[in-house]
Amino acid sequence: MNFRNILKPLVLIVAFVALAMALPALIGLVYNEPEASSAFAAVMASVLALCSVVFYFSRRWQIQRISVKESFILVVLCWVMISFVGALPFYISGVIPNFSEALFETVSGFSTTGATILTDIEVLPKSMLFWRSLTHWLGGMGIVVLAVAILPLLGVGGLQLLKAEAPGPTVDKISPRISETAKTLWGIYVGMTVVEAMLLNLAGMPYFDAFNHAFSTVATGGFSPKNASVGAYNSAFIEWIVIVFMILAGMSFTMHYKIITGRTKRIFKNTELKVYLAIIVIGTITVAHSLFYHKLYSLHGSIRQAMFQVVSILTTTGFATADYKQWPPFAQYIIFLLMFAGACSGSTSGGVKLIRIVTLMKLAINELKYLLHPKAIMTIFIDGNVVKKDMIYSISAFVFLYAASVLTTALLCAASGVGVLTSFTAALSTVGNIGPGFGRIGPVENYHFFKDWVKWFLSAAMIMGRLEVFTVMVIFTRAFWKK
Amino acid sequence: MNFRNILKPLVLIVAFVALAMALPALIGLVYNEPEASSAFAAVMASVLALCSVVFYFSRRWQIQRISVKESFILVVLCWVMISFVGALPFYISGVIPNFSEALFETVSGFSTTGATILTDIEVLPKSMLFWRSLTHWLGGMGIVVLAVAILPLLGVGGLQLLKAEAPGPTVDKISPRISETAKTLWGIYVGMTVVEAMLLNLAGMPYFDAFNHAFSTVATGGFSPKNASVGAYNSAFIEWIVIVFMILAGMSFTMHYKIITGRTKRIFKNTELKVYLAIIVIGTITVAHSLFYHKLYSLHGSIRQAMFQVVSILTTTGFATADYKQWPPFAQYIIFLLMFAGACSGSTSGGVKLIRIVTLMKLAINELKYLLHPKAIMTIFIDGNVVKKDMIYSISAFVFLYAASVLTTALLCAASGVGVLTSFTAALSTVGNIGPGFGRIGPVENYHFFKDWVKWFLSAAMIMGRLEVFTVMVIFTRAFWKK
Repeated sequence: MNFRNILKPLVLIVAFVALAMALPALIGLVYNEPEASSAFAAVMASVLALCSVVFYFSRRWQIQRISVKESFILVVLCWVMISFVGALPFYISGVIPNFSEALFETVSGFSTTGATILTDIEVLPKSMLFWRSLTHWLGGMGIVVLAVAILPLLGVGGLQLLKAEAPGPTVDKISPRISETAKTLWGIYVGMTVVEAMLLNLAGMPYFDAFNHAFSTVATGGFSPKNASVGAYNSAFIEWIVIVFMILAGMSFTMHYKIITGRTKRIFKNTELKVYLAIIVIGTITVAHSLFYHKLYSLHGSIRQAMFQVVSILTTTGFATADYKQWPPFAQYIIFLLMFAGACSGSTSGGVKLIRIVTLMKLAINELKYLLHPKAIMTIFIDGNVVKKDMIYSISAFVFLYAASVLTTALLCAASGVGVLTSFTAALSTVGNIGPGFGRIGPVENYHFFKDWVKWFLSAAMIMGRLEVFTVMVIFTRAFWKK
Repeated sequence: MNFRNILKPLVLIVAFVALAMALPALIGLVYNEPEASSAFAAVMASVLALCSVVFYFSRRWQIQRISVKESFILVVLCWVMISFVGALPFYISGVIPNFSEALFETVSGFSTTGATILTDIEVLPKSMLFWRSLTHWLGGMGIVVLAVAILPLLGVGGLQLLKAEAPGPTVDKISPRISETAKTLWGIYVGMTVVEAMLLNLAGMPYFDAFNHAFSTVATGGFSPKNASVGAYNSAFIEWIVIVFMILAGMSFTMHYKIITGRTKRIFKNTELKVYLAIIVIGTITVAHSLFYHKLYSLHGSIRQAMFQVVSILTTTGFATADYKQWPPFAQYIIFLLMFAGACSGSTSGGVKLIRIVTLMKLAINELKYLLHPKAIMTIFIDGNVVKKDMIYSISAFVFLYAASVLTTALLCAASGVGVLTSFTAALSTVGNIGPGFGRIGPVENYHFFKDWVKWFLSAAMIMGRLEVFTVMVIFTRAFWKK
């Protein structure tokens, strides 16, 4: 382990995040928020200065190619460091005077969770609201590259499944491929954001709100500058736009790339995509039926509310247009069920991801056949490719560690005196990067009431979930630190 | 598929269960309960007559050796048929005038779940109370043989893991081995029951209650003839006896056999047993600490209450001495957490079973190492034996199907208008054969309020869980019915 190898990329990323604070600083000037604006400027200046110093002193270091172990450390440290740096403006401006809460809010931002500790969001200065949304957007940007290009190379993540047939990438191919892939994906990411913001503006949302929501949507984050989330605008047009972009954000970004470059032929043969769309349709129909049957909304209202909430939870965004805790138990349970899923691999969404669930389902069906024909050799196919045995081990192990993370996080919540349902869904929601839950953390409630020490653990849970559990847990194994 | 092969053993088992009704019929005579007694006599007589007729007409049938597919059908039909027959005395005597409820209660008995629909247990005639407990005991007897001798031969169940080294049993060895094994195991089972009943009687419990509770304990069932369950006696002595026997019932019955025959040397090297005892100790300490810290009981009282409830839920018995829903959230959550586990394979307990969880944990640790050394070949050892790859697939598939069963059962509960927490824990509790849950089905509540159609599904869930999911699900695959 050579920390010198990690330092430079880490400092670069932290510097980049600090530089991004120029935007909220500017917005603070525009909206005449001198205190908030100077908080951003101060943090930006000091962090950039510190980064320069580090860069100056490390200028002669012989940097070797980064190793696998160092990559794990780098990825985790990145999310931890930018969260600490990102929390500073909230803290020093006094907008969030409790550092545990400022950190929680920022981790929730960068991990694209969208769980908030704010009891009144709208009292915040515009620049702070913008920074909240921007942390989502930057975190999502990081995840797109991480999920599509970096983690699969480290053996983490579900995407290598789709490439099962391709020759395995070798380590020395990493750098050129990453920068190449990253540029394309970021292009799509930025494009989606701009298009959504424009459409939202056309639908009547002010530019400021439109960009905030667009940042939050494409990152499948969930922060909104409004207390009532997207529901505040009470506009069907706006909600349908957000629904469409949440669905797009929950799809794999490599798929978007294929669509843009015209390779649409085999898109709808993609198993994960088919399952994703099927769940949205079935979820919407069942929830809408329940809402309409109980006469909560009109027919269109039922479909709109149902689809918005189903898509919001499945994609792990967490926007709200209604308090689903007031819905009939069946509709509530569908929402609860979706919290176990997540959307497509290679997207900005969190959770278990559908490809893993599909693989385990195929395994289960195979095992049932195997009971009848114990001597048969069974193979699992996905999208026409054979799923390698190693992949099944990896997925089983992932789901086990994911479940263990959820149950442990919930244990800590319960230890602080929070009830079973709230603890369990808070854990599901933070590890899955969703945002809201049930019990005391419904869609119109918040995480403020948790004890400070619990907020630290929930922050850790959000990072754990965001980095596909393995990435964080591997660092805590003995094998990792053995020479 | 030749149903003639199944019919004879099925009729034999049903006749055996009908014959067992002689016991409650006698008890009804002793306690002067003519109506109840004659209900048992009537059902017994008509079922035995019907069985004789079937036997008479099938006497010339050429019976072939039973095939794997037929075994699955037989096992499932056994549990379904004895439940229907066993429900008749409750129904025709008018003690449980609703057939859905009578069936639910009987399935809950034979599956050793212990969930009840009775709002007042103590108003039942003694003979009916005895029959309730006896269904547990007979169901447990069936499970001991099923789990230890039959299911592993069909490729279902976790126990084949422990025999990984032994040469695979061939189908023609089944019959002699089963009857041999069964006799020994039943000897232990009967012995444990008698010893516990005697001890309970010594501790001050009347003979009738002592046998009822002993039946329920060794089967890890949970039915009690008292409304307040074991708590009704308010006796530390009684509770400790029940705790000890619940722990014994949660252990593998092959292990008891080894202990009795003096082969105790390697007992405490058994991984599953170590984990089982460790969970009991840790669970008790944490819950007792929480209870004592919140000043709910004295120190001894806290330990006793904690251990009783931890053991009761982990072994999936479901006896109660306290309403854990009134406990601090942390203690409640530990109980909730234990609902995901179950005790040892080869016991009468339900749930996922610890050996499966241990295997997945070892797999997860291996996968973390594998990330660091992608070219290494990793092997999982349990008790010094290599765990075969097929076994890991089987366990992953089992856990997936188990989870799917729980979530689907909960979906149906929610669809009937029951809240998320109640639905979810009712599903956990029925598929896991535990009994109580959270929400509206706490340890001092019951399943009466569920709609009748939900009770049918919950009954199916209990049988599904009891037969290790695979056994039931395989029948619903297309491959099963293909020539």
